[in-house]
Amino acid sequence: MNTIEQRVLDAIDIDGMLTYLCDLIAIRSLDGEETEAQRHMAAKMEEIGLDVDMWDIDMEALEQHPAFSAEVERETGVGLVGTLGQELGGRNLIFNGHIDVVPTGDAANWHYPPWQGTIDNGNLYGRGGLDMKGGLCCALYAAKAILDAGIQLKGKLMVESVIGEEDGGTGTLATVLRGYRADGAVVPEPTNMAIITAQAGAMNFRVTVPGYSAHGCMRLEGVSAVEKFIPIYQALLELESHRNENVTHPLLAKHLLPYPLSVGIVKAGDWPSSVPESLVFEGRYGVAVGEDMLAARQAFEEAVIQVAQRDPWLKDHPPTVEWWGGQFESASIPTDHAIVQTVQSAYNQVTNTAPHIEGVTYGADMRLLVNQGQIPTVLFGPGDVRNAHQPDEYVPVADLITVTRSLALTALRFCGYEED
Amino acid sequence: MNTIEQRVLDAIDIDGMLTYLCDLIAIRSLDGEETEAQRHMAAKMEEIGLDVDMWDIDMEALEQHPAFSAEVERETGVGLVGTLGQELGGRNLIFNGHIDVVPTGDAANWHYPPWQGTIDNGNLYGRGGLDMKGGLCCALYAAKAILDAGIQLKGKLMVESVIGEEDGGTGTLATVLRGYRADGAVVPEPTNMAIITAQAGAMNFRVTVPGYSAHGCMRLEGVSAVEKFIPIYQALLELESHRNENVTHPLLAKHLLPYPLSVGIVKAGDWPSSVPESLVFEGRYGVAVGEDMLAARQAFEEAVIQVAQRDPWLKDHPPTVEWWGGQFESASIPTDHAIVQTVQSAYNQVTNTAPHIEGVTYGADMRLLVNQGQIPTVLFGPGDVRNAHQPDEYVPVADLITVTRSLALTALRFCGYEED
Repeated sequence: MNTIEQRVLDAIDIDGMLTYLCDLIAIRSLDGEETEAQRHMAAKMEEIGLDVDMWDIDMEALEQHPAFSAEVERETGVGLVGTLGQELGGRNLIFNGHIDVVPTGDAANWHYPPWQGTIDNGNLYGRGGLDMKGGLCCALYAAKAILDAGIQLKGKLMVESVIGEEDGGTGTLATVLRGYRADGAVVPEPTNMAIITAQAGAMNFRVTVPGYSAHGCMRLEGVSAVEKFIPIYQALLELESHRNENVTHPLLAKHLLPYPLSVGIVKAGDWPSSVPESLVFEGRYGVAVGEDMLAARQAFEEAVIQVAQRDPWLKDHPPTVEWWGGQFESASIPTDHAIVQTVQSAYNQVTNTAPHIEGVTYGADMRLLVNQGQIPTVLFGPGDVRNAHQPDEYVPVADLITVTRSLALTALRFCGYEED
Repeated sequence: MNTIEQRVLDAIDIDGMLTYLCDLIAIRSLDGEETEAQRHMAAKMEEIGLDVDMWDIDMEALEQHPAFSAEVERETGVGLVGTLGQELGGRNLIFNGHIDVVPTGDAANWHYPPWQGTIDNGNLYGRGGLDMKGGLCCALYAAKAILDAGIQLKGKLMVESVIGEEDGGTGTLATVLRGYRADGAVVPEPTNMAIITAQAGAMNFRVTVPGYSAHGCMRLEGVSAVEKFIPIYQALLELESHRNENVTHPLLAKHLLPYPLSVGIVKAGDWPSSVPESLVFEGRYGVAVGEDMLAARQAFEEAVIQVAQRDPWLKDHPPTVEWWGGQFESASIPTDHAIVQTVQSAYNQVTNTAPHIEGVTYGADMRLLVNQGQIPTVLFGPGDVRNAHQPDEYVPVADLITVTRSLALTALRFCGYEED
């Protein structure tokens, strides 16, 4: 590490970052309700000294884009990018973090107040601290340290604060459509500080299984949609097992189940004494890295059709399959790409350990940066994703420090900087 | 048929009955909302010349009774019995009919207005026309014909208009607790004019199957409550098949499935991408004629426990079984009882055909009259129960006429009457 890098690391304002993260957790930026948090973040970016671009996202135009997907209806949304430096012959870099958070669920399951940051035992608790206002603050305070240390980067460093990641990627798609591009990007999602170069895709599905109503006291005169659901469910589990047999991507192949097909919701009937005339189930369907979305859908639909054709009732009353909400492509970049190597060397320098390079089974905005923006992107951030979307969500403070330091070094090394 | 019987049959006011039935259909007497209909009926009973006993049911006291069961919360309810004649050495008879009706469901599925009686093609359409304001009007107009013909019965004929049959039998239990007893009773539920001397019991159940939540992208870290539900469901179908193998009651044994176990509602999860941490299913469980309720419950619970003991997860996180809402005992009377024989001979006389004597797989207020009131009771009424609780519910007008005539003859022959 040279003296300039050391100066930047020394300039990192950890206390300020933790304070600001707690401020941000206190703003309930659920999907569709991020405007206040975005305005707050824009003011912070101004205060730090970034060039702020805040705009009203043209939702109507965005919704026409083939990569658009959202579960929450929005009429407006705020885009926000804070930029540091200018193009002086170096590379441009994006740090991208989402400001939206998922609901708390039953607040009674929380031991810490969800809408307030609480540091206890070395962890920072609160909704979004981990997923991912924490990572977003690391990015912001890495940029601040470069400014505070008076270093001139040779490329642009753009800090993107985006909305709607949890419900489909509205905010990141909007930055791509506004023209933001770079030679590399880091999304500080909670990866336990592993460097993620590949992610599976995922599609939401809904299957409606028809039955025929009758009073339960003569149930043979009806057809139970629950009974008809079971072979369909079993066929889908078989499909899942088949799709996970010969996984070729080396990083995904390390997972026990790289491409899960998971049923999350089942609903049938509305009266205990009636034979249910319909059952609806919804879930998420893992898409292999590099797999064509249409081919994946066809495999699913065919599994359902095959069950239906073997069943006299379903043959004449076929189940319907809908693809709705999140329809996320997979994404991957080469593990020897400069952005991977730079994050790797930065983390190594900060911690004296080599980072893991991994693939993940979940979707995130990485796919939009890679597939829509053609921006080589890694996920790399503080904390364990297993604690996301849970009560008592937390991020270790030590991780926040390590990631802020690693991102600051990454920016210096990836963009380059003027020597004193 | 003698001249007195003929005089009574001639006195039956069919047009008046159909008009009144249409008036009654127009009063939306859903469970918990029967008071207006009961007041209307009481006025009609007065007008006809019955001695009217209308009272506010003491719901608090009723709820303490072991045979009480209800799905609707009520603070008040109206009891109503209209009596004709007095004890002069003959037998007393009860006609019991419920005035409450089930909701219409989606009105768009109706081709006839649900809250209005419409006669078309020989059928009378409208919610409750079949189940069972029609049968109740038959009973009322049979009593009216006896009065109008000036006949003095030798026993009392009581017309009970009861609430809350659909949700557990509140009104009939209230008549029993008020002291109404007789030597026989007819409940003109829709039986296609078969005489029902035995009915199965039925119990509502709710089973909660625990799972363990995880994100669907790593579903192996969770336990799907849907997956755990399937072997339980299958074990319950096996239990059903076992319980229907050697049915001893001759009338129930004629059914393809005398004691169905039917799952009517299934609900699991609230997010497509989460492994569902709980699944709840509800249904109705057929109780054999003469079967002990507790023994039936134990058989069900043991089937669930056995599955749980074979499953490592369920062993430590056992499903729970609740018995809620309708808990209906079975009921039966000898087929050679006087009330059976009297209805039989009356129907035979009216139609020149022998009635069927049958058992049914569903519960009705018969069980309360038989088991709580010790009143030998049959079901015998107009129309087909398959059309009950359905859109375009209807009752054939010809059945209404036949049943009114049969009930008038039944009253004369069962109670006896003074010769001119």
